[in-house]
Amino acid sequence: MFKEWEKSPAGTAFELDEFIATLKYNADGLIPAIAQQHDTGEVLMMAYMNDKSIRETLREGQVCYWSRSRQTYWRKGESSGHRQKLVSMRADCDGDTLLLLVDQQGPACHTNRRNCFFFEVDGNGATVLNDVDSGL
Amino acid sequence: MFKEWEKSPAGTAFELDEFIATLKYNADGLIPAIAQQHDTGEVLMMAYMNDKSIRETLREGQVCYWSRSRQTYWRKGESSGHRQKLVSMRADCDGDTLLLLVDQQGPACHTNRRNCFFFEVDGNGATVLNDVDSGL
Repeated sequence: MFKEWEKSPAGTAFELDEFIATLKYNADGLIPAIAQQHDTGEVLMMAYMNDKSIRETLREGQVCYWSRSRQTYWRKGESSGHRQKLVSMRADCDGDTLLLLVDQQGPACHTNRRNCFFFEVDGNGATVLNDVDSGL
Repeated sequence: MFKEWEKSPAGTAFELDEFIATLKYNADGLIPAIAQQHDTGEVLMMAYMNDKSIRETLREGQVCYWSRSRQTYWRKGESSGHRQKLVSMRADCDGDTLLLLVDQQGPACHTNRRNCFFFEVDGNGATVLNDVDSGL
């Protein structure tokens, strides 16, 4: 279906239930979701959603993932207070990835770094960019 | 291993072969890689890499993915000319996602939109943000 939809001109609208049902989920019913700070453009983390967590996120305006390790809904910040307010949700051309523009309160990473991508990799090896609990 | 590594202070270095071998690949040997324009912060696309495409990307400085649909290496821009020059590669806290800071030549999306995330989703439905071939 996305092979047809991708050709649509700007402004073309799709019904929510059909759109969510047509997204491409993996064998576990999950779709990867990238969280990006809406104003700075910082990529904060990537996690997974299912159709119900997508609906809850749209309804509540607070990002809800599916935790693969805990096998339960993961309302980001519910225990840490480091919530993600949804600013805008996007889906990609072939419907197998989401991009969440969010307003992140505090650090996004469970190590209390601001974002999760703190290993820099080059031809020589990998290097840690920021300290734990640095908020950077 | 990443449970230990994530605690490391800034500047801690890891050997390349061990780091690449320790990344978490899915059952198909793949890891998702987010491509972000290095200077504007625009999230361009997400695709998949395997250990060999990671090595080639680091060696050549041009992004090489693994195409799941074609089951072959996908040297981004090889046919379209829309190459991605690698500026910096990052891995996340638990080693299951890569972030590629790139310099994208032309549109990243196969629809000739600048990025792949052109469906905006909200509580009412989904809407196409940009026209095909717009470069936006």
